[in-house]
Amino acid sequence: MIVTFGEIMMRLAPTGYLRLNQTSQLEMTFGGGEANVAVSLANYNKNARFVTGLPDNDIGLACIGQLRKWNVDTSEIIVNPGRMGIYYCEKGASQRPSKVIYDRAGSAFAKLKSSDFDWSKILKGAKWFHFTGITPALSDGIADATLEACRQAEQMNIPVSCDLNYRKKLWSKEKANKVMSGLMPYVDVLIANEEDANDVFGIKAGNTDVTAGKLCFESYRDVAKQIDDRFGIKKIAVTLRESVSASNNLWSAMLYDNGDLYSSKKYNIQIVDRVGGGDSFAAGLIYGITEGYDCQRALEFATAASCLKHSIEGDFNDVSVSEVEALANGDGSGRVQR
Amino acid sequence: MIVTFGEIMMRLAPTGYLRLNQTSQLEMTFGGGEANVAVSLANYNKNARFVTGLPDNDIGLACIGQLRKWNVDTSEIIVNPGRMGIYYCEKGASQRPSKVIYDRAGSAFAKLKSSDFDWSKILKGAKWFHFTGITPALSDGIADATLEACRQAEQMNIPVSCDLNYRKKLWSKEKANKVMSGLMPYVDVLIANEEDANDVFGIKAGNTDVTAGKLCFESYRDVAKQIDDRFGIKKIAVTLRESVSASNNLWSAMLYDNGDLYSSKKYNIQIVDRVGGGDSFAAGLIYGITEGYDCQRALEFATAASCLKHSIEGDFNDVSVSEVEALANGDGSGRVQR
Amino acid sequence: MIVTFGEIMMRLAPTGYLRLNQTSQLEMTFGGGEANVAVSLANYNKNARFVTGLPDNDIGLACIGQLRKWNVDTSEIIVNPGRMGIYYCEKGASQRPSKVIYDRAGSAFAKLKSSDFDWSKILKGAKWFHFTGITPALSDGIADATLEACRQAEQMNIPVSCDLNYRKKLWSKEKANKVMSGLMPYVDVLIANEEDANDVFGIKAGNTDVTAGKLCFESYRDVAKQIDDRFGIKKIAVTLRESVSASNNLWSAMLYDNGDLYSSKKYNIQIVDRVGGGDSFAAGLIYGITEGYDCQRALEFATAASCLKHSIEGDFNDVSVSEVEALANGDGSGRVQR
Amino acid sequence: MIVTFGEIMMRLAPTGYLRLNQTSQLEMTFGGGEANVAVSLANYNKNARFVTGLPDNDIGLACIGQLRKWNVDTSEIIVNPGRMGIYYCEKGASQRPSKVIYDRAGSAFAKLKSSDFDWSKILKGAKWFHFTGITPALSDGIADATLEACRQAEQMNIPVSCDLNYRKKLWSKEKANKVMSGLMPYVDVLIANEEDANDVFGIKAGNTDVTAGKLCFESYRDVAKQIDDRFGIKKIAVTLRESVSASNNLWSAMLYDNGDLYSSKKYNIQIVDRVGGGDSFAAGLIYGITEGYDCQRALEFATAASCLKHSIEGDFNDVSVSEVEALANGDGSGRVQR
Amino acid sequence: MIVTFGEIMMRLAPTGYLRLNQTSQLEMTFGGGEANVAVSLANYNKNARFVTGLPDNDIGLACIGQLRKWNVDTSEIIVNPGRMGIYYCEKGASQRPSKVIYDRAGSAFAKLKSSDFDWSKILKGAKWFHFTGITPALSDGIADATLEACRQAEQMNIPVSCDLNYRKKLWSKEKANKVMSGLMPYVDVLIANEEDANDVFGIKAGNTDVTAGKLCFESYRDVAKQIDDRFGIKKIAVTLRESVSASNNLWSAMLYDNGDLYSSKKYNIQIVDRVGGGDSFAAGLIYGITEGYDCQRALEFATAASCLKHSIEGDFNDVSVSEVEALANGDGSGRVQR
Amino acid sequence: MIVTFGEIMMRLAPTGYLRLNQTSQLEMTFGGGEANVAVSLANYNKNARFVTGLPDNDIGLACIGQLRKWNVDTSEIIVNPGRMGIYYCEKGASQRPSKVIYDRAGSAFAKLKSSDFDWSKILKGAKWFHFTGITPALSDGIADATLEACRQAEQMNIPVSCDLNYRKKLWSKEKANKVMSGLMPYVDVLIANEEDANDVFGIKAGNTDVTAGKLCFESYRDVAKQIDDRFGIKKIAVTLRESVSASNNLWSAMLYDNGDLYSSKKYNIQIVDRVGGGDSFAAGLIYGITEGYDCQRALEFATAASCLKHSIEGDFNDVSVSEVEALANGDGSGRVQR
Repeated sequence: MIVTFGEIMMRLAPTGYLRLNQTSQLEMTFGGGEANVAVSLANYNKNARFVTGLPDNDIGLACIGQLRKWNVDTSEIIVNPGRMGIYYCEKGASQRPSKVIYDRAGSAFAKLKSSDFDWSKILKGAKWFHFTGITPALSDGIADATLEACRQAEQMNIPVSCDLNYRKKLWSKEKANKVMSGLMPYVDVLIANEEDANDVFGIKAGNTDVTAGKLCFESYRDVAKQIDDRFGIKKIAVTLRESVSASNNLWSAMLYDNGDLYSSKKYNIQIVDRVGGGDSFAAGLIYGITEGYDCQRALEFATAASCLKHSIEGDFNDVSVSEVEALANGDGSGRVQR
Repeated sequence: MIVTFGEIMMRLAPTGYLRLNQTSQLEMTFGGGEANVAVSLANYNKNARFVTGLPDNDIGLACIGQLRKWNVDTSEIIVNPGRMGIYYCEKGASQRPSKVIYDRAGSAFAKLKSSDFDWSKILKGAKWFHFTGITPALSDGIADATLEACRQAEQMNIPVSCDLNYRKKLWSKEKANKVMSGLMPYVDVLIANEEDANDVFGIKAGNTDVTAGKLCFESYRDVAKQIDDRFGIKKIAVTLRESVSASNNLWSAMLYDNGDLYSSKKYNIQIVDRVGGGDSFAAGLIYGITEGYDCQRALEFATAASCLKHSIEGDFNDVSVSEVEALANGDGSGRVQR
Repeated sequence: MIVTFGEIMMRLAPTGYLRLNQTSQLEMTFGGGEANVAVSLANYNKNARFVTGLPDNDIGLACIGQLRKWNVDTSEIIVNPGRMGIYYCEKGASQRPSKVIYDRAGSAFAKLKSSDFDWSKILKGAKWFHFTGITPALSDGIADATLEACRQAEQMNIPVSCDLNYRKKLWSKEKANKVMSGLMPYVDVLIANEEDANDVFGIKAGNTDVTAGKLCFESYRDVAKQIDDRFGIKKIAVTLRESVSASNNLWSAMLYDNGDLYSSKKYNIQIVDRVGGGDSFAAGLIYGITEGYDCQRALEFATAASCLKHSIEGDFNDVSVSEVEALANGDGSGRVQR
Repeated sequence: MIVTFGEIMMRLAPTGYLRLNQTSQLEMTFGGGEANVAVSLANYNKNARFVTGLPDNDIGLACIGQLRKWNVDTSEIIVNPGRMGIYYCEKGASQRPSKVIYDRAGSAFAKLKSSDFDWSKILKGAKWFHFTGITPALSDGIADATLEACRQAEQMNIPVSCDLNYRKKLWSKEKANKVMSGLMPYVDVLIANEEDANDVFGIKAGNTDVTAGKLCFESYRDVAKQIDDRFGIKKIAVTLRESVSASNNLWSAMLYDNGDLYSSKKYNIQIVDRVGGGDSFAAGLIYGITEGYDCQRALEFATAASCLKHSIEGDFNDVSVSEVEALANGDGSGRVQR
Repeated sequence: MIVTFGEIMMRLAPTGYLRLNQTSQLEMTFGGGEANVAVSLANYNKNARFVTGLPDNDIGLACIGQLRKWNVDTSEIIVNPGRMGIYYCEKGASQRPSKVIYDRAGSAFAKLKSSDFDWSKILKGAKWFHFTGITPALSDGIADATLEACRQAEQMNIPVSCDLNYRKKLWSKEKANKVMSGLMPYVDVLIANEEDANDVFGIKAGNTDVTAGKLCFESYRDVAKQIDDRFGIKKIAVTLRESVSASNNLWSAMLYDNGDLYSSKKYNIQIVDRVGGGDSFAAGLIYGITEGYDCQRALEFATAASCLKHSIEGDFNDVSVSEVEALANGDGSGRVQR
Repeated sequence: MIVTFGEIMMRLAPTGYLRLNQTSQLEMTFGGGEANVAVSLANYNKNARFVTGLPDNDIGLACIGQLRKWNVDTSEIIVNPGRMGIYYCEKGASQRPSKVIYDRAGSAFAKLKSSDFDWSKILKGAKWFHFTGITPALSDGIADATLEACRQAEQMNIPVSCDLNYRKKLWSKEKANKVMSGLMPYVDVLIANEEDANDVFGIKAGNTDVTAGKLCFESYRDVAKQIDDRFGIKKIAVTLRESVSASNNLWSAMLYDNGDLYSSKKYNIQIVDRVGGGDSFAAGLIYGITEGYDCQRALEFATAASCLKHSIEGDFNDVSVSEVEALANGDGSGRVQR
């Protein structure tokens, strides 16, 4: 069993490329970093438990129903008073970026306290624990709970992965640095893009001008090395997104493993929906590692999985292991499968 | 110009008779008691100003755009940080009731303080001021602002109407009693159904068993008389809903005017959407009174307007004066207009 | 083969009970009195030819495609420059009437002249010719063509039916009287409701107050008798709509046959879409007569067919002979057919 | 745990009241007698296991996902080669009946043999077993499996319920009689409407003319008594549907209990979707009995539950225990719940 | 008149890029190789007759209605008991391939026997006969009927074209080889892509690695030459698809004519829907040949037609001759046509 | 305040890439050259007044409501009898061009006469006046009104801009030349693409083969110089569209300013909807000039604004100043904005 811990929100999105001001029809789905990872892993036939808090109303119950549909273990979700966080998502195209508006304050999850979670019970039988940098940013209570979960995981010898994922609207760089630095000692596998490493830890990749979509591949080893030196994390993965436009990205990834650096294939992607791309990479990496793949194979699996995510609507990466393997093994031609 | 003051929310509703757990398609519109009144009056070609607070993001701006579309004066809406209140609305049918779930805590409007409103400016040129019992229930700041608005209206000789509208999820009966009792002395026209009068002021209509859809008409004069006696309000209107089922209601109204009691026609309604029915009555009554209609005619206009609302989707009553008059004058046959 | 002659328009309708001002989604179908009759007859496996003019563009071609789908013979449709008439249709509910807005001026059909039609070719093999009072109202050219068609039908011994259908926005009562009076001598079967008989010929049914939905059955024999006396039409049918509301009508019909009067069952209808109700009656009557049914059976067939039309979306009555017969024979219980 | 056994099909339905020939948009849901019962019970927070066979493709997996969403235990579903049964469902209105077209031959379920099911494992921990007369009608293999399940249930002292549900397109009356008569000795609770009792067992209720929507209540005791006499079934329930039209039914039920006869309230229903009405009654009855309700209360619960089903789209009855209880306890006024 | 013979299926597809597991909305259209060819030819104003079997229910009738809409001659379609084949179609994007799930076993068409078809009547007046390799794969009865059709065509001097189209889920390579080899002697124009030639006849193009989207143009002459040598087919066409991704293909074609080889322009296509691309090529080629175009012009017409198909939703290629000619003549700029 | 003058039409478009013949669902929005400019400017928080004529029915009122929603000043719109112009818009893809069908004859606007407009009142307080070459093409009355507006603007020292926009279906080149030549002396800023300059004034850019999507940049200075020489217009802008396909265009622009020539960045656009691209450029240019931007900055703003328009559905360019500035300043990477 793999356990992930974080917030899941209602996602409200206009159909197609309409903007919020142009439509009265919204598509309601659900998503959030750690939920997305759990769903991916369940799609890969892993036993995946998602731990969160949800409101005690029909909205919260509908969300649990969706997670169950995707085969996620919802038995440790805490249903309590409060609201469900929402994010509005306009899909960008060409030179117009996608735009996300968050309305997540005061969620049933953020209101929970560390004492609401019994980690020894939650993690019983777990083979992996995963969270993102968004989770501890939500509230002090949740930050405490995250730390407690990490401690318990360490005691139970459960490997821990973290996707750094800095959200500037949730907390300051200073606070992020402080809290995340306290969590890093428990982390075995870190996923961090170049901006987040800089924003949270002040660790900087040289010569990258992300806005222009240009990425300097060579500097990433430095970033990973610095993180390893500071926190003793031996596996650090980075996804490399080259944004040609909102419709077209180049996508690849690198995996640092105790000093060695592995590089994936690079995919030229026509984007359907890029939200959740990083989460699908994290899930692919966790899958590969827990399946005992070697570094290169795990990296290629994760990159192919997240490449496919860009062709899937919604946060959840609705693809199977065999579909990911087919792409990782080289078939990206998109020929019809009959 | 008629000024209304209150909260407007995003309304998210599944299409048709689907429940929230059955769909991923939500219809996004906007609505709220006082906004509904303003839209009705604008549809009757009245100059209608709606005063509220809205969040400083694309959601708030989309809402303002909709109000402008309906010809409402949005010039005094305060755009400030915060979120927009939401309500989810499942449409009932037959024996299954409609169900509303509120997610309105922490709204940009509720966060405003009395000092944020300059009522002498807002009410300049106003011929009427309207609010509902929901507005002061939202926060102490808004309750203060409501009182200040009433005081200013009195100073400027602007008539004030109030729809009592008790919401038990927003405040206790005790608090409602205290706050509303402080506002009543400024109110010239009160709209109150039988439950609200009891919940807020402990004024009780005899022998009414509302769940069973049976209403005892005779007792309403007592209720109105008691309100008049306590607060000196000379015009008190009540709508009389006999709920046969979620699909079928009987609808009529009564108007107490300084001791006299007027009774409207009764309509047998096949319901399309009953949310906002009371607001459309309030708007019709304000229209009738400001147009100088006599009591019976004003009451019939208001009742016909609100009867038609039940055939209109959404909170806003998309009908014209001529459509209301046609029904008030007796044509409810629904024959095609070519 | 049965030939019908008239205009077909694009019908644009908001979904459900939305008004035009509330939606940006329109349902595009096609409809018009004589086209509706042709489709009904094709659904009854009659060879039905519809004669009209349509614009020489993708809109006109799409309309022809739809007629073909419904198995209507489109071989004599004239494709010429011009536009396609449009009507916007808001569906009413309860006390709110349905509302139709026409935008049909300058249509490709109305621009045609009598000489554009070769009636001896068009009517070759025909067993019936049908038109409505809307057709000659569209333009003088089309009025001439209608007269020419009637003359040719008479020469070829083809029975002619006409649905009087007065449209006050198309022509004055005076002009209607003049033109229709010239056509009546060729008509063998007339369908006319009480208002149209009065509007066009000044023939009045006593004591009917149609707005109030009250109909005085007894007076209809007088109306038919007067028409027979004036024009020598031996079969005259009337549909009797009692409008309880836009959602609920009572529906029955009467058939005058050379002095005798037949009365149909009366149906209590929950309305889905009442547009085309009269046309479906006309088609049912033509079907019954051409099948050699006796008067009572033909009337019951026509009434049952048009009753069912009220449960069908759009102008076209998508029901089969066996479905009509089942209702005419008494099964209106609506039990599921498996 | 309650176990149900039967086929689940894909349900394809046009939106609203459109007919299949009028639309290209189909709503895909899933449904089938025993699946519907399982979902209802899961909605009442019962542990409900549904046993069936589903095809080994994305359609079958999507169906399992939906069942999981509704909290049904899918652990004993057999995934095997074959297709998924489909039924097309046109919603009727007013005098036009709903119409169902089945395309279920050769389903993955029907292909299964008795030996594919290990009933001692499937029924382990079960407190109830339920099937309908459709299940053994699907194939001889499934008929054998049903008999085996009943035998195993008897051995394990698990009560068995059966909804007689005769489908003439699946088997002849003779075969139904033979197979069902073999199953009846294991049945503790039988649900049978008047037509089915006659079609399957030749047991006839006197003077009922179902087409005309008239039901003779008095004769039902005879029917139940005859069944009891023949098969020794002590609890026999009948639902009483009076079809006013496809839009409006009267709905009540009776429960025969060892000679005593209980009668429920009668509901006047405006129909949203009546498919699955009988299944929701069965589920309500099972719920009531397993909760230890007395006969009257169990009957009222079942009747209220199935009344509410008529207001819910799709096969599955998306209502909670508290919603059913509210109606059973007398609140059918449909007033908005806030 | 051009006659095509084969199966038409219901096509059920989620909207946009959704997967089957993500949606409950399916778009229902119809399609199948030979039906697609007939529709294309009808769109080019050719008299096109499509011969098939369809079920005797509303689904079959709806399909016939659609064919009529597209102006296809449906007079020789056999309506008989059975079901309609279905295929589910998920649209791929970028690296994710489109996915087709067939549910076509036991169709009304596959159940037909050779003796059900009177080919001398069906082919009377025909100028061309077309089928694909899917048709004889459906059942032995249909394989016999295909052979009989070919024999009759030869007797009547009607040219025959065949699109080889191997479907491994329908039959083995061995059986395909045997049956198709028996049909080839009657074929005048063969369309075969490189994989099919290999799968069915073991005729292999050198050095093509289709998965990688790389195509070796030079080897195609060999393939065609081998086919010509074996079966004496003088005209053999191949479409050349270079799959960059599911969203982007390069598309061209070659035509072998008695030893000469013609090569078309190559199009860089942004794909809307690629299903039916090959059929639209076949139709374009038949059109060009029957219009007497020279080889190069016929090939360019066919390639342009099939290029445009990729921009059209559904199986049917909704384009006109003038649209195809405009592209074939060089205008692929996509500038707005007003 | 900026005043624009022209026609606004109803735009009816199938969803996605469907053709008119493939769908019954149309998206209804509104658009027209000068309305599009007004909406853009209102989106940039400019006070924008749109002057037109609209029919006196619910369609006209709905259009006014939409304009109000977009914050356009509708106070000088003339509501009069007549119809509303319509255009049908099929979205092209890849090699298939978008296709527009106009149905605008006899519009309420085209029927207006010069005397219907009081330009001294309409232009009071205006800082700019804008029209396109479509406006005077609609009718002689409107051509007169345009000339009158220009004269009044000159008297009031209001700068005038014109987008040449030749529509061959509205008038001949000869008439366009005559009328537009009479208007040019009042124009301060002209926008004209290369084809329009040639069609209307016979002024030709050398060596441009627009169909092939090849543009010869160098020749534009000649065109502008010739216009300047003939009419004394000092600012002339040209947009340069290189049509790779209907899905992909390169887009840039040039601005001639009294002999100097400024060239913008060139954007590689994946097209969502290109209708209104030119109008959004005009609005951007007017915005830049009225904000006092220098030529290069104004040009870059206009080009970025119109680049973004291609990613927005509908005629109206739903983007803000900050979004345009972000792109003009170099961020076209389309990274998600949170």
